[in-house]
Amino acid sequence: MTSNAVLTIAGSDSSGGAGIQADLKTFTALGCYGTSVVTALTAQNTTGVQGVYPTPPEFVEQQLRSVLDDVEINAIKTGMLVDADVTRAVARTLKSHYGAAIPPLVCDPVCVSTSGHTLLHPDAVDVMISELFPLAAVVTPNKAEAVLLLSQRGLPSRVDTLEDMLVASRNLLSLGPRAVLLKGGHITTTMDDVRKVAAAHPHIQVVREGLLGENMEILQVAEQDLSKRVLVVDALQEANAITLFVRPRIDSKSTHGTGCTLSAALATALSRGKTFAEATRAATAYTHLGIETAEPIGSGHGPLNHLHPILIRSVPQPTESNPHPLVRSMIESSRSIWKAYVEHDFVKQLAMGTLPRECFLHFLKQDYLYLKYYARAYGLLAAKSATFPAIETATRTIINVVTEVSMHTAYCAEWGVSEQELAATPESPATTAYGAYILDAGIQGDSARLVMALAACLLGYGEVGLWLKREAARPDTWVKLEDNPYRRWIDDYSGANYQAAVKLGLETIEALAVADPPSPQRYREWLKVWERCTRLEKGFWDMGLGLM
Amino acid sequence: MTSNAVLTIAGSDSSGGAGIQADLKTFTALGCYGTSVVTALTAQNTTGVQGVYPTPPEFVEQQLRSVLDDVEINAIKTGMLVDADVTRAVARTLKSHYGAAIPPLVCDPVCVSTSGHTLLHPDAVDVMISELFPLAAVVTPNKAEAVLLLSQRGLPSRVDTLEDMLVASRNLLSLGPRAVLLKGGHITTTMDDVRKVAAAHPHIQVVREGLLGENMEILQVAEQDLSKRVLVVDALQEANAITLFVRPRIDSKSTHGTGCTLSAALATALSRGKTFAEATRAATAYTHLGIETAEPIGSGHGPLNHLHPILIRSVPQPTESNPHPLVRSMIESSRSIWKAYVEHDFVKQLAMGTLPRECFLHFLKQDYLYLKYYARAYGLLAAKSATFPAIETATRTIINVVTEVSMHTAYCAEWGVSEQELAATPESPATTAYGAYILDAGIQGDSARLVMALAACLLGYGEVGLWLKREAARPDTWVKLEDNPYRRWIDDYSGANYQAAVKLGLETIEALAVADPPSPQRYREWLKVWERCTRLEKGFWDMGLGLM
Repeated sequence: MTSNAVLTIAGSDSSGGAGIQADLKTFTALGCYGTSVVTALTAQNTTGVQGVYPTPPEFVEQQLRSVLDDVEINAIKTGMLVDADVTRAVARTLKSHYGAAIPPLVCDPVCVSTSGHTLLHPDAVDVMISELFPLAAVVTPNKAEAVLLLSQRGLPSRVDTLEDMLVASRNLLSLGPRAVLLKGGHITTTMDDVRKVAAAHPHIQVVREGLLGENMEILQVAEQDLSKRVLVVDALQEANAITLFVRPRIDSKSTHGTGCTLSAALATALSRGKTFAEATRAATAYTHLGIETAEPIGSGHGPLNHLHPILIRSVPQPTESNPHPLVRSMIESSRSIWKAYVEHDFVKQLAMGTLPRECFLHFLKQDYLYLKYYARAYGLLAAKSATFPAIETATRTIINVVTEVSMHTAYCAEWGVSEQELAATPESPATTAYGAYILDAGIQGDSARLVMALAACLLGYGEVGLWLKREAARPDTWVKLEDNPYRRWIDDYSGANYQAAVKLGLETIEALAVADPPSPQRYREWLKVWERCTRLEKGFWDMGLGLM
Repeated sequence: MTSNAVLTIAGSDSSGGAGIQADLKTFTALGCYGTSVVTALTAQNTTGVQGVYPTPPEFVEQQLRSVLDDVEINAIKTGMLVDADVTRAVARTLKSHYGAAIPPLVCDPVCVSTSGHTLLHPDAVDVMISELFPLAAVVTPNKAEAVLLLSQRGLPSRVDTLEDMLVASRNLLSLGPRAVLLKGGHITTTMDDVRKVAAAHPHIQVVREGLLGENMEILQVAEQDLSKRVLVVDALQEANAITLFVRPRIDSKSTHGTGCTLSAALATALSRGKTFAEATRAATAYTHLGIETAEPIGSGHGPLNHLHPILIRSVPQPTESNPHPLVRSMIESSRSIWKAYVEHDFVKQLAMGTLPRECFLHFLKQDYLYLKYYARAYGLLAAKSATFPAIETATRTIINVVTEVSMHTAYCAEWGVSEQELAATPESPATTAYGAYILDAGIQGDSARLVMALAACLLGYGEVGLWLKREAARPDTWVKLEDNPYRRWIDDYSGANYQAAVKLGLETIEALAVADPPSPQRYREWLKVWERCTRLEKGFWDMGLGLM
């Protein structure tokens, strides 16, 4: 997402479906920063326009100057321009601010609302053509507007067929813009018409949208008989090219603000440096899907759904004040079981030095067996990795575990447990459950899921280490470090080496959610895996205490 | 996402950071439908307010009636109300439309802009208190506004400390709203202050946001010394509860429109039936992250980033006119290699009956070996499945493949190839490459990735079958069905049984993208897997022709 800024100069639609409201929603849904100059307020809704309160031209100009003087604008669209004075003020201010270097300007020559309300004074049509069209990258008339504009200049103004559209768009181009997008929503066209026109004019490009291309027989939907289906064809006329955008017509009452939305989406695409054809394709697709996915709002012609490209993040972006949003939300989502794990009685007794020796030995032996699963799980992670750095990281962890195990073995020897005894220890169900669950997570899911399954162990022991260290530092601490037989365990997990591994783990986990933001479903799965492993960790210490 | 509709009654900010623009962006980014009644136009930008053009009260009322008469509104917020007449018109119209059953109304008592511009006529303050506050679910003053409102009614108006905030919010509550959210952005507070206040008033709830909770030592960020850090505390006063929302203060110039954004987010959350505390938590989090993730826009106090919760879909939703957006986009993304696969010379020669017998036999034998990988891959898919229906579907496919193989064996016998010969056939590299790639995809990724890897085979043979059937039906067809030794092959893949499997496969694939919309990274991976398998399929037929 770029932070492109786009400006709309148009009327306000109180009901939110058209005008600057449709434009701002479109800019937002497509990831741009929207600014707006209001040329008139309307009291309107889906049944029609109940009132218009025009803005004086001077105040239109003042709004425009406020925006242009402060915000770098990457594209502009104009909608309802009310009358000749406003139109003139807009053209003049743009010219005086930008000179020749105006950003792409989409001029939607709004003249009459769908409900028949005049939105541009007849006097203004000529001003729009002579003052604004020469500044425009593209103008986007519908049939009625094309007829009005052509008549105004005494040009042939019949726009009833696809052939008429070609003539009309060429004539409109002669009025000054760099391109014309003549919208065919009110012209009945079939695929046969498109074929005939394409055959008669071999230089015409035809872009089929929502229609099946070559080698897509399997997608053929039974009811789609293209040759008979009524189509919508939009014609993009540039100086040296003409492109037809062909789509099936959608039967829908949700068409309030279609023209506003299309021109806003076009401006958005042009602000990102797209060609006219690319921008038209993106904008018509956005608009079309907006109509097709709309839910009914209001009792008349309802608005499009402007939100269809939007998904809502499950995990916020990391920021300076919240660098670990994913891990934080995982901990918060299963707060009580996490607490039961990291502040387990086993740990408390260990920290006080009162933990029975046989409990610690039982734990040590089972931990030895668990670490085998843990190392294998990182082997599986290496096998699931797509890059050498990822393979290397997983492999280094295995080496670390193997090293840890040799220290573990030496440590056990100090406690009188031989390596033979370690290897011969029967595996507790708690150990099998946890170890096998991690491997299962790795088999079932992708590497992200496996990383989540490995996280509770890595992070939890780090948390225990830091907690005990902090508690030990309190004036009247319950933690007994001196002469504690388990002191080395505490030092190991609160020490710099282990904590560095924790930090790396945190970064790895957060980076996963940034690179591949999880859908709600995936996020729920991650939470479930985390919660399960936290519970299995708690079970592991229950086992240690209970000698199970 | 619900299609809740929310209404803002406020001023227009040309530069897009505050007013109805901030509100509409907030509604959109949070998935609501926004409507707006404009109380005044402003010419403003990040450096200040250059001009205000108020809307006559009658036209405010007309806009409001247009919205209320047509759109079912789930929550309302008011911002800049200009003067007493507009404030009165708004209160009167809401009362006359809703009676007592008004949806949650958030009243942001905007009085003065950050840059010092008066946005509410002093006369209007009393009207707002007496007419609007009694309708309000919650009012959201900042320090300056709280002082003004309290002074107006002769109540103690010092708001310098956290203790002052508690007194002020109780007094503001007595003015009529059901809740008061007193914003502490202009009051310096530390964690010690919060602790003292919480100790003195045990009934106070403290919600820590962006601050570490219990058992989160590992997330401790070195520079965060909470006891010294300057905080922002917002106080939510309800009739029987007070909640403090505590956050670290962000140093940022991007604060233009903070109040508008907060009250708009609050209205959005209330429209969804959240409690005041839940709504406040969500709204303050949204606003806070908007400040922290803002990029600089304009030369003064720039706007918040309203888009931070938004992700853009990689795959559009399926619709009636485009029921297979994912498969369509996969085919389109590697159109030429897909065509080279489904219109392969092997297939053409087969359809003309001119394919050398030894090529077909070679293909048949390798296909037998390939089908073993294919069946195993569905075994892996069963192992990766989370539900019994998914396990069953994968398993049924294995049964189908095993059945197909027995027919395959019988078919080969007709061509003089015994089962022994089949089993003893050395595997071609093309077969190993394709078969092992699919298994690798299944090991590396989740079940969705494996389904994508299995798709090119299933769908491609379906496409070949339909293509040959269509070509065969043409008047002067090049396809030779009669006396074609390979006719049974053509009939099998164009037949109803195989096509039903294709249809089921299409539905499965599209359902994956609907249930778990892929991030751009995952979508790119799917495209890569699809392209690779398409290429391997083409290689398989190259092998058939080349007897490699």
